[in-house]
Amino acid sequence: MSKHLQRDVEHLKKQLLMMGGMVEEATDLAINAVIDRRSDLATQVQAGDDAIDAKELEVEDHCLKMLALHQPVATDLRFIITALKVNNDLERMGDLAKNIAERAAALCEQPPIEGAQDFRRMAERVRWMVHECIDALVERDVDRARKVCLDDREVDEENRRRFVQLQEVMKRDPANVERAVSLLSVSRHLERIADHATNIAEDVVFLVDGEVIRHLRLARARAQ
Amino acid sequence: MSKHLQRDVEHLKKQLLMMGGMVEEATDLAINAVIDRRSDLATQVQAGDDAIDAKELEVEDHCLKMLALHQPVATDLRFIITALKVNNDLERMGDLAKNIAERAAALCEQPPIEGAQDFRRMAERVRWMVHECIDALVERDVDRARKVCLDDREVDEENRRRFVQLQEVMKRDPANVERAVSLLSVSRHLERIADHATNIAEDVVFLVDGEVIRHLRLARARAQ
Repeated sequence: MSKHLQRDVEHLKKQLLMMGGMVEEATDLAINAVIDRRSDLATQVQAGDDAIDAKELEVEDHCLKMLALHQPVATDLRFIITALKVNNDLERMGDLAKNIAERAAALCEQPPIEGAQDFRRMAERVRWMVHECIDALVERDVDRARKVCLDDREVDEENRRRFVQLQEVMKRDPANVERAVSLLSVSRHLERIADHATNIAEDVVFLVDGEVIRHLRLARARAQ
Repeated sequence: MSKHLQRDVEHLKKQLLMMGGMVEEATDLAINAVIDRRSDLATQVQAGDDAIDAKELEVEDHCLKMLALHQPVATDLRFIITALKVNNDLERMGDLAKNIAERAAALCEQPPIEGAQDFRRMAERVRWMVHECIDALVERDVDRARKVCLDDREVDEENRRRFVQLQEVMKRDPANVERAVSLLSVSRHLERIADHATNIAEDVVFLVDGEVIRHLRLARARAQ
C-alpha cells in the first residue's frame, strides 16, 4: 500500500470511529429520554442528527476520492467498499435514534406508562453492539464481530418480550393503547439499530475471512 | 468509456432491473397474502427471498470486479458506487417483504380482522415507487426520481392513517390487540420499503445533478 493510501485509510478509520461514537451517544440519549422522561435529551438527539448526516457525506466524499486517486485493488478496495456500506448503516442508525427521541418527546407530554423502565438492559446491549462492530471493523477483529452477531439474537428475544408485555398493557386498559404503541415503536427502532450493527459485523467477517464465507453463502443461496 | 466498461455497465443495469422486479413482485405477493389471507403466497415470498439475497451477492461481486478491472473515475465511478448502495437497499426491501409475509402467515391462522383490506392503495403506491426508482436510476431520469420522493410523503400519510385506525380497533376490543399489532407491523414494513425506494431516488438525483445538491446539503447540514 502506498504511503498516501495508508494515510487516507487511517483517516477513514478515525472518521468511522467518530461517527460510531456519535451514534452510540445518540442511542444512549434517546433511550434515557424515554426512561427518565426527559424531553431535553430528546431535543439534543434531534439536533445531533444533522451532525451525523454531515459526517456521512464527508465519509462518502473521502471514500470516492480514495477510489479515484489511488485506484486500489484487492484488500484495500474491499475495505473502502465496506466503509461505504458501514457509513450508510451508521447514518440510518442515527435516524433510528432520532425516531426514538421523537417517541420520547411525545411520551413526555403524556402520563407515565408501565414498561418504559424495562428498556434499560436492551439499550445497554444495543449500545455495546454499536461500539463493538465499529471497533471490530477498524481492528479487523473477526471474533468481536461474531460476538456482535450472537448478541443480536438476545436483542431480538428482548424485543419479543417487550411486545408481549406491551400487548398485555394495552389489553388491560384501552387508555394505554397510544402510549403502548409508542413504546412498541421504541422497541422496534432499538432492535433495528442492533440489526444495522449486525450488518456491519457481518461485513467485517466478509472483509477479513473474505471470499470463502461469501461464496459458501452464495452457493447456499443458489441451492435453496 | 471503454467498450468493456460500457458492456459491464449495461450488464449491471440489467441486473438491477431484474432485482427491482423481484422486490416488486415480493411486495405484491406479501400484501396480497395479508389482504386475501393466502398463506401460500406468504410461503412463496419467503422462498423467493433467497433468490434476492443471491442476486445481491452477484451484483456486489460484479461491481467490485468492475472497480478493480476498469478503475473507473468520475461519472462511471459514481454510478458503480450508487449501484452498490441501491443493491443494498433492494436486498433490505426484499427482507421487509419477507417480514410482511411472516405477519401474513400468522394472520392467516387467526380470525379475520378489520383493517387488512385497507392496505391495497398503499401497497399499490409502494410497488409503483419500487418500479420507478430503479427505472429512474437506469434511465438517469431525475424527474421520475423526484416524483418518487414526493410519493413517499403520501405513503407516510397513509401509514399514519393506518396507525390511527388500528389503535381504534384495539381500543374497541382487547381481543383485537395481537392481530392489530401484526397489521401495524405490516404498515410499518410497507412504509419502510417506500423509504428505501426514496433513498434510491435521492441517490439518482445526486448521481445526475451531482455535486451541486450534494454540497448544498452538506453546507446546510453543517450550518444547522
